[in-house]
Amino acid sequence: MWHYEPPLRDMRFVVDEVLAAPAAWARMPAFEGLDSDTAAEVLAQAGKFAAEVLAPLNGPGDLAGCQWRDGEVTTPPGYRAAYQAFVEGGWPALACDPECGGQGLPQLLNAALYEMLAAANHGWTMYPGLLHGAYECLHAHATPELRERYLAKVTSGEWLSTMCLTEAHAGSDLGLLRTKAEPQADGSFAVTGSKIFISGGEHDLSDNIVHLVLARLAGAPMGTKGLSLLLVPKVMPDGSRNAVHCDAIEKKMGLKGSATCAMRFEGATGWLVGEPNRGLAAMFLMMNAARLHVGLQGLGHLEVSGQNALRYAAERAQSRAPRRPEGAEAAVADPIVLHPAIRRTLWTLQARAEGGRVLAYWAAQALDEAACDPDEAVRRAAEDRAALLTPVVKALLTELGHEGADQALGVWGGHGYIHETGIEQVVRDSRVAMIYEGSNEIQAIDLLLRKVLPDGGARLGQLLDWAGAQAEGASNAQRLRQGLQALRECVDALVEGTASDPEWPYRAADDFLHALGEALLACAWARSEVAAKAALAEGAADTAFYEAKLQRARFQAEYLGGELPRRLSSVERSRAELPFLPTP
Amino acid sequence: MWHYEPPLRDMRFVVDEVLAAPAAWARMPAFEGLDSDTAAEVLAQAGKFAAEVLAPLNGPGDLAGCQWRDGEVTTPPGYRAAYQAFVEGGWPALACDPECGGQGLPQLLNAALYEMLAAANHGWTMYPGLLHGAYECLHAHATPELRERYLAKVTSGEWLSTMCLTEAHAGSDLGLLRTKAEPQADGSFAVTGSKIFISGGEHDLSDNIVHLVLARLAGAPMGTKGLSLLLVPKVMPDGSRNAVHCDAIEKKMGLKGSATCAMRFEGATGWLVGEPNRGLAAMFLMMNAARLHVGLQGLGHLEVSGQNALRYAAERAQSRAPRRPEGAEAAVADPIVLHPAIRRTLWTLQARAEGGRVLAYWAAQALDEAACDPDEAVRRAAEDRAALLTPVVKALLTELGHEGADQALGVWGGHGYIHETGIEQVVRDSRVAMIYEGSNEIQAIDLLLRKVLPDGGARLGQLLDWAGAQAEGASNAQRLRQGLQALRECVDALVEGTASDPEWPYRAADDFLHALGEALLACAWARSEVAAKAALAEGAADTAFYEAKLQRARFQAEYLGGELPRRLSSVERSRAELPFLPTP
Repeated sequence: MWHYEPPLRDMRFVVDEVLAAPAAWARMPAFEGLDSDTAAEVLAQAGKFAAEVLAPLNGPGDLAGCQWRDGEVTTPPGYRAAYQAFVEGGWPALACDPECGGQGLPQLLNAALYEMLAAANHGWTMYPGLLHGAYECLHAHATPELRERYLAKVTSGEWLSTMCLTEAHAGSDLGLLRTKAEPQADGSFAVTGSKIFISGGEHDLSDNIVHLVLARLAGAPMGTKGLSLLLVPKVMPDGSRNAVHCDAIEKKMGLKGSATCAMRFEGATGWLVGEPNRGLAAMFLMMNAARLHVGLQGLGHLEVSGQNALRYAAERAQSRAPRRPEGAEAAVADPIVLHPAIRRTLWTLQARAEGGRVLAYWAAQALDEAACDPDEAVRRAAEDRAALLTPVVKALLTELGHEGADQALGVWGGHGYIHETGIEQVVRDSRVAMIYEGSNEIQAIDLLLRKVLPDGGARLGQLLDWAGAQAEGASNAQRLRQGLQALRECVDALVEGTASDPEWPYRAADDFLHALGEALLACAWARSEVAAKAALAEGAADTAFYEAKLQRARFQAEYLGGELPRRLSSVERSRAELPFLPTP
Repeated sequence: MWHYEPPLRDMRFVVDEVLAAPAAWARMPAFEGLDSDTAAEVLAQAGKFAAEVLAPLNGPGDLAGCQWRDGEVTTPPGYRAAYQAFVEGGWPALACDPECGGQGLPQLLNAALYEMLAAANHGWTMYPGLLHGAYECLHAHATPELRERYLAKVTSGEWLSTMCLTEAHAGSDLGLLRTKAEPQADGSFAVTGSKIFISGGEHDLSDNIVHLVLARLAGAPMGTKGLSLLLVPKVMPDGSRNAVHCDAIEKKMGLKGSATCAMRFEGATGWLVGEPNRGLAAMFLMMNAARLHVGLQGLGHLEVSGQNALRYAAERAQSRAPRRPEGAEAAVADPIVLHPAIRRTLWTLQARAEGGRVLAYWAAQALDEAACDPDEAVRRAAEDRAALLTPVVKALLTELGHEGADQALGVWGGHGYIHETGIEQVVRDSRVAMIYEGSNEIQAIDLLLRKVLPDGGARLGQLLDWAGAQAEGASNAQRLRQGLQALRECVDALVEGTASDPEWPYRAADDFLHALGEALLACAWARSEVAAKAALAEGAADTAFYEAKLQRARFQAEYLGGELPRRLSSVERSRAELPFLPTP
């Protein structure tokens, strides 16, 4: 049966041996005293919560869905109690400032926490998913009065939070937003407008909901430079209900346990967070972390799909395999895990999940270093790394998560198409992660057009140097160097080609993001190989773990090593004209 | 809003100009008098039924689903009336023998009919989907008594039919089946056993249901050579109910309008169809047509996804495009159809759908020639071609259909994740086509291990000669010839490599199938280009159609031409050892 086994062993390997995070924490005063064992204990407890509390609610929550009635939303059975336990466990405050009631742990551990939550129950995780962003936003931009009133309760998770951005006619293009905010005599604003796709806009998990709303002040310029951010609570400080209404919840492909709300603000009272017309900048502060967290959802989907597919394949017997392990008993049918097509799928899922974990955790570590390293040069380099890694992690891992779940479904054959097996829900739940927090197409444009080309690839070159250094000592180091070099040449070609054909990078952006992603995955695996070999050389007890790791590193190089050249060649192909379409 | 526009113009182009089918029909006495206009009229009527009767039931049927109560199944509102109209229109009998009440039209037209039905409403189409197979099976193998009693009603569709193969422990491996059939004094058999995943096992569309059941006679050998086929009606000739029970219907990812039944046969009365222990052979007769029809479902998904995505993209405005058509008005936001990433998705969907249509219709035409050409050599060549094309059409088009729908969803952004948009249902509905009628992994093994390698690639070589001839005169003919040559060399390598590593072709099968598929798609597009150029040279009136066709042919060559080399290189990569997995 479907269940979730937190990959604690692999997480510890990545955190301690691949990233050498404990040594990095020792450099940062904010993480003084944090060591490998403490971190492992935090993750073990988080894993226990994910596996024992959240995972059992996942399938039933998908069937029950959320119910809307007269503006109130009821979440699936068990969701509220699980959320109370989550708050009592102190999990929302894991990576928050101790001065605000947080635990002050690294983003890296928060990343591992959210990977596990999403793997166990993505729908439920949508509710606390925006808390940390709201915390950061209020922490950095709110007035002392607003902080006083809201920050502690958002930090602890006692009150949940939303981000109200999208309107029916304005999704990727926030410049088209129409919601308006009019100043009131008491310094507050009256917020009026309709928002859609608001995750957790209404629910029964917390007594109050803190909405962060993008709106336009009277007289503000059109476009994204006229947007302001307002805090609009569901319940006013005096206990009365604010003029915020949930008109409906969406009937979605997946994430049925998460209430996706159509919200109507009818002159609702709100307070400005940050400067007028600088709302998008205030929100962008939390963008890297938010996008990283979406990538972690993809990683969770990949992990949980792969481990369940493996368990099923080891049990299900169908036909004889063309080859069997030595000493295997003869039978009329072999476990399908012995069949080559199934083996290839399972190795792929494992190689993608473990490589993806290194990639995502690299990004989380970069956020910690950017925020907390005492050396300014280190902080700046880490910030650059995070800026480039984030869109790759977001787009690549959500795609690998969704495609991986879809591929895993095939391991169950027809049984995979049935709800009770569990995998079809992951296919449905995972799809939206490719869209929200900036669609993957937008991530690709952000990467290539905003972050790589403007400086002629200089910042990217530093990332590639860093990635190449990670891969040093690996058995295929030379081929990796060639791959990184090919990527540099690709950037040079794009820089040059853009002059005569400014549209080319837009056509090439998606393949370019994947090319960079594949190069980084290859380096992540090279680094993992080096770490595993070192552990074996030092006589580590857990030899089975490290030997399996080396097998997957070989699989990555041999079977998946064609992805980078393929993507580079697609970038080249996209030089060809792409005409406008005849429309019907 | 979501709707389905039958691609009649393109169908006529493929049937008349690419396949030159009317000339082929003229050679075959069975199709005497059938001309291009008659065929076009048949398709126009079929398209009208699909678009006007079936398409409106598709979304509501997904929401309503099927209801099971005390062994009875209620289909979604409107399904029964639509089915009555389908029978009254004579559609089930389209390609059946006139002597049995059929209309005697080619499989090619039946293929186009089923493409449209599946595109409009895949769930509903599951009910008549097995009728033609049952017809062929009874037509070829049933005793005169059985034919007398059942054939006319199955031909007309008055009674629907099922194929009862799968059991809980026996899916891909039918040799494991346990359902048994015991002879009775009157020559009938008592059938006992449990079957799962029986499409249309119970429903309210027809008064009787004719089950074709694979079972094992007492004393029959184990494995697939001990299976017999039995006809087991729901209602006995005397009007009493047979001992056939529907115990449950499955809760599935998609196709919710189609009742997927768990069936229990409790000593139900049945009659042998064909020879004892030759049940699988009797069923294999209809395998090519059945698999082609599943491929057509994928084609339908691709077509309907692409056309709806294009309509939406032409209406939805979001952000400015980096480039615009000359003379386009300045606006704060452009229709997303102008954005390069969206354009690329839409061109891809169109190129895949139109190329896939040529490929699928080639296979249908081969079935007609194999059955009806007066020249035995032509029949045999067509049979060989159908044998090779069938697994490619089934696996490749169902994959393109599902992936295409999934990619199309992104055109709607967050709106695509909502049920009312329509596209998320196609993503869910399309997934199972990759599994049933022999999973795509099994199609790949069938192609490479059973049909290509045993004769050292001789039969495949003939197909490649034929495909190369199709592409003659195209602008990229030389590159296509190189591609076909690379495919031949790949087969040679596989033949040689198999001697020392018999598992290699199993590891390579999936990539090999795709390589062949991509080569055939490229030839299909080359042929389409030649036909379009010829029409333009002859001064065809409909220049916009042909010029758009040429644009898509260029897109295929420029943007998608990398797929064949990529797959060939993956075949080569799969020489690497693929170890058994450490299991948990």
